[in-house]
Amino acid sequence: MVRNNIIGFTNSGKSDKKIFSWNPTSGLKNSEEGFAVANDEEIEEALNLAKSAFSELSGMSSILRAEFLEEIGNQIILLGDHLITTVVSETGLPDGRVIGERGRTVNQLKMFASVVREGLWTEASIDEAIPDRQPNPKSDIRKKLIPIGPVVVFTASNFPLAFSTAGGDAASALAAGNPVIVKAHEAHPATNALVAEAIQRAASICGMPNGTFSTLYGNGNEIGEKLVSHKEVKAVGFTGSFSGGKALFHIANSRPDPIPVFAEMSSVNPVVVFPEILSTESSQIAAKLANSITLGSGQFCTNPGLILIVEDRDTEEFINLLGQKISESSVSPMLTKGILNNYREGIKRIKNSDKVRTVALVEGFENGTPAIFEVDADDFINDNHLAEEVFGPSSLIVRCQDTQVLKSVIEKLDGQLTGTCFGTKGELIGNEDVLQILQSKVGRVIINDVPTGVEVCDSMIHGGPFPATTDIRFTSVGSDAIKRFARPICYQDFPDSLLPLELQNRNPLNIIRKVNGELTRSSLVKLSVSGS
Amino acid sequence: MVRNNIIGFTNSGKSDKKIFSWNPTSGLKNSEEGFAVANDEEIEEALNLAKSAFSELSGMSSILRAEFLEEIGNQIILLGDHLITTVVSETGLPDGRVIGERGRTVNQLKMFASVVREGLWTEASIDEAIPDRQPNPKSDIRKKLIPIGPVVVFTASNFPLAFSTAGGDAASALAAGNPVIVKAHEAHPATNALVAEAIQRAASICGMPNGTFSTLYGNGNEIGEKLVSHKEVKAVGFTGSFSGGKALFHIANSRPDPIPVFAEMSSVNPVVVFPEILSTESSQIAAKLANSITLGSGQFCTNPGLILIVEDRDTEEFINLLGQKISESSVSPMLTKGILNNYREGIKRIKNSDKVRTVALVEGFENGTPAIFEVDADDFINDNHLAEEVFGPSSLIVRCQDTQVLKSVIEKLDGQLTGTCFGTKGELIGNEDVLQILQSKVGRVIINDVPTGVEVCDSMIHGGPFPATTDIRFTSVGSDAIKRFARPICYQDFPDSLLPLELQNRNPLNIIRKVNGELTRSSLVKLSVSGS
Repeated sequence: MVRNNIIGFTNSGKSDKKIFSWNPTSGLKNSEEGFAVANDEEIEEALNLAKSAFSELSGMSSILRAEFLEEIGNQIILLGDHLITTVVSETGLPDGRVIGERGRTVNQLKMFASVVREGLWTEASIDEAIPDRQPNPKSDIRKKLIPIGPVVVFTASNFPLAFSTAGGDAASALAAGNPVIVKAHEAHPATNALVAEAIQRAASICGMPNGTFSTLYGNGNEIGEKLVSHKEVKAVGFTGSFSGGKALFHIANSRPDPIPVFAEMSSVNPVVVFPEILSTESSQIAAKLANSITLGSGQFCTNPGLILIVEDRDTEEFINLLGQKISESSVSPMLTKGILNNYREGIKRIKNSDKVRTVALVEGFENGTPAIFEVDADDFINDNHLAEEVFGPSSLIVRCQDTQVLKSVIEKLDGQLTGTCFGTKGELIGNEDVLQILQSKVGRVIINDVPTGVEVCDSMIHGGPFPATTDIRFTSVGSDAIKRFARPICYQDFPDSLLPLELQNRNPLNIIRKVNGELTRSSLVKLSVSGS
Repeated sequence: MVRNNIIGFTNSGKSDKKIFSWNPTSGLKNSEEGFAVANDEEIEEALNLAKSAFSELSGMSSILRAEFLEEIGNQIILLGDHLITTVVSETGLPDGRVIGERGRTVNQLKMFASVVREGLWTEASIDEAIPDRQPNPKSDIRKKLIPIGPVVVFTASNFPLAFSTAGGDAASALAAGNPVIVKAHEAHPATNALVAEAIQRAASICGMPNGTFSTLYGNGNEIGEKLVSHKEVKAVGFTGSFSGGKALFHIANSRPDPIPVFAEMSSVNPVVVFPEILSTESSQIAAKLANSITLGSGQFCTNPGLILIVEDRDTEEFINLLGQKISESSVSPMLTKGILNNYREGIKRIKNSDKVRTVALVEGFENGTPAIFEVDADDFINDNHLAEEVFGPSSLIVRCQDTQVLKSVIEKLDGQLTGTCFGTKGELIGNEDVLQILQSKVGRVIINDVPTGVEVCDSMIHGGPFPATTDIRFTSVGSDAIKRFARPICYQDFPDSLLPLELQNRNPLNIIRKVNGELTRSSLVKLSVSGS
């Protein structure tokens, strides 16, 4: 049986073109049946269905959406070991990691369900009328966030569950009340099929409108352009390469009606190491960094790809320690042949630079062999290519003579997801200007810990200045991610019964609202001014 | 004396090229001295100064910013009648309107000062560490909004004060902590000079860093491209034409590092009139609409340019009444020769369409002569040009046979700032689907009132889908306008003393924050986990 595109509640495989996934560990094709790619007719169907689902969803209670999100989580758990073995066969990731990622995915769905129930995310705000205000009466004015419209989600190679079919982008877009069309990742189509069917079942159980969720298979560039330029699509979520994200961003902005693209792309996540802390914690920091660099074969967007060291007497020892740890670390397969080839080429490029010295590298580097290089600050500053992301378990140490040079190196960097500082309290306080410059380049600043491990919580920002993402104003991880797929609307002098529940006088959802400038759960005792 | 560009605390006029303003009432040049346009060197100076001011501003207390905003208001009031007569001479607007707009401008500055003092806008959020969490400890994670960087503001022809030099864009950008570079409007350079000097004085009195505010004169297209493509510029505010806004949007997105552009551009603000309400309120609605259409010579972005009537027995009478009111309305000059010429051409284009009938129009139409036209829904749907904005005191009535046709007409419309419905309560409740479609096209929906008159308050949304604005997710009026010029940042495991005041344990600014998921003003009793 060919696993098909899912278009609302029907499955469809009209094209003879197929895609197949490969087992990164064995190098073999996972199955001979493959997945039929979506043709133009199927794309049209999915988008038209999404349009009509959107208008139905707008009239539904937010409670039902919360239940739907939780049911997706239940259905994913019900997939049991079959999901885990499928992911492992398509990604080469170890069991434990995949089980952990499933947990994170289910927890994210639960988190967005509670965000939806809490209702604070809608930013409901009411300014009551003042009919006798001089010189002009004041109208009754209310606002809240509403869903933006059908959202296309491009899934990530490196998070087959948490940033994929039912991952953060899809979950937050659904939570806000939008239909979602997931473009399945070429590297893990069978994983996509299992999760998509789980979502389809949850949608059916919870009575979601047909077209609330669809998933389409296809070649990234071709289907990507068709989806992002389609008039019914109102926003895009993407996690992947700089070239892919940038291409979608430009397609979206060239539409007659440009739409927002939330692309998380490229980041080398600079780590600053001040000298004093190395006198006591050299070995711990080297171990932490080595672990962070090699975790999951370095295939994390927050992987520390650049280590900026202010030179002092412990520098050599620290670099040696780090090199040693890296040499001792185990080798694991990379997600796809494409990623492995890119990693090899990236490593080759750095290794072949005149100015760069190799600290640790297993010759031959089959699979995702960990590597550490070093370069002097001046040479780094003069070679733009050295600041480019090498996706995988390698890191480049930049040796800075002093903090002035360190600041020049940071100034030169592009936008990043994260920036990290290791230092004693005295070093941190004495170098507040370094932290300030670092902050201007990133979305998250970390003190004395590694950037990998992105906590899913209210205060998380997983984003940053271009080219880390295409929109510095939003996060793709944490509860605020829901705000990407919403837009505000204002209701002036509406009859109470025509207002959405969040803005009705009696506050039927019992949410916190801003009423005449004060945050409160209170209902408004008087009737609305008009329409009563 | 040539009135010069203001670059921080110095005035500079290096170029021999000058611009001059004209009195729209007399048709004469306002002065022979003119204003020296900024050359490349002056643009560089203003932007470099803004960069250094930005880093100084980041370290300053928000209280000082609030005082600065209030002092700008004081300095504007101190300009006295000289400001009013200058605006009148450059815009042709009546005294009363200009005095009212000055009041609005000063009130906006005060509002943003209180928004800054209140601190809620920063979205401060704290998730405390859980060091003993299993399987992994949880870090201390905090976030808040921070200023985005130097902002360029393009001022509006039709609001020489409230959407210009110290208007909503500049005030909200300064409130967020950004330096601002105002591109002076060619139509009111002397007004700009007075207000800019007021801001300069306020900056000096309040000890703001040099470069917090600059203003440059120049030809819109040329200086616009230079400013928006400049690497130190991090966001753009614009109020004006579709072609101007769209050009800036594309320049900003073609940068190596795209930046957000908040352009408010074009809107015809459809008004739906249901039949039943006309049986009792025909005359009141006609009077309200006629007044809204002709207010300020129709030069408002929320001017009702399209009236969609569901035909019934009172339709003819209503159209006649509206035509009569429009014919009786007074004629006032338009802001500039360019706007007047565009208005004349727009009117001519509509008038010459085969399908359009003229309901009211004073032949010859010197100045901004009010006009009303009507067209059948089918003809409207088949002619794309009829839906285009004609900036001035005219409106096009579209006669719809029934609500089905009405819905097709609304479906066809582009994005708008506002949509209005006049109807009895029964008509509104019976046509919720019409309201739903209308909502999908606009940023603000108004019941039984006119769209002109944009209340400055928490719940206002002055924005909407493209081409009404370039960013559907934000408002340019009301307290939330500040969020356009900010971005979130996340601090992980920071020593308390290195956190911004808004996120420190003891909550020194006494603001409302989200702490472990709950909104509270409480301080955190325990010390921060790291760095203590």
